[in-house]
Amino acid sequence: MGRVVVDVMPKPEILDPQGKAVAGALPRLGFTGFLSVRQGKRFELEVDGDVTPEVLAAAREAAERVLSNPIIEDVVSVVDAASLDTVASA
Amino acid sequence: MGRVVVDVMPKPEILDPQGKAVAGALPRLGFTGFLSVRQGKRFELEVDGDVTPEVLAAAREAAERVLSNPIIEDVVSVVDAASLDTVASA
Repeated sequence: MGRVVVDVMPKPEILDPQGKAVAGALPRLGFTGFLSVRQGKRFELEVDGDVTPEVLAAAREAAERVLSNPIIEDVVSVVDAASLDTVASA
Repeated sequence: MGRVVVDVMPKPEILDPQGKAVAGALPRLGFTGFLSVRQGKRFELEVDGDVTPEVLAAAREAAERVLSNPIIEDVVSVVDAASLDTVASA
């Protein structure tokens, strides 16, 4: 069973009040050195079988039409979760 | 200027109504083949300077103490955004 990870972020020119709130909270809690924070969404789509190029293409279309609002958000990546595991554990 | 990406997902045993809603909407909109959807959060933290191991450690602590609720969420990855660019464009 495969898994596709879709990342959606607010467009750079869009105000991100959630991110701003986090950025304001971090120094108050002792975490300095972070200049700004943006908050977006991460989806994990489980598919029956392998993550083929066709599955990725369908996931990308779903990401653009259902998982994100193209007026205010960008789909920043649509990848096979298996390709991320090596990165995350590095 | 570096960027750290933090991914937070609902724990597997926690009900995820947003993900369920998306999973229900996909087939109605013609996207079949997705068995389930989980929705989490993705944060981008901008730092002044390079993403050193110390910056990553601070980001991981911030992720666990501020960006996620450890009762219901897991921090699934804390990585240098530069390490992701090669994956996302692959």
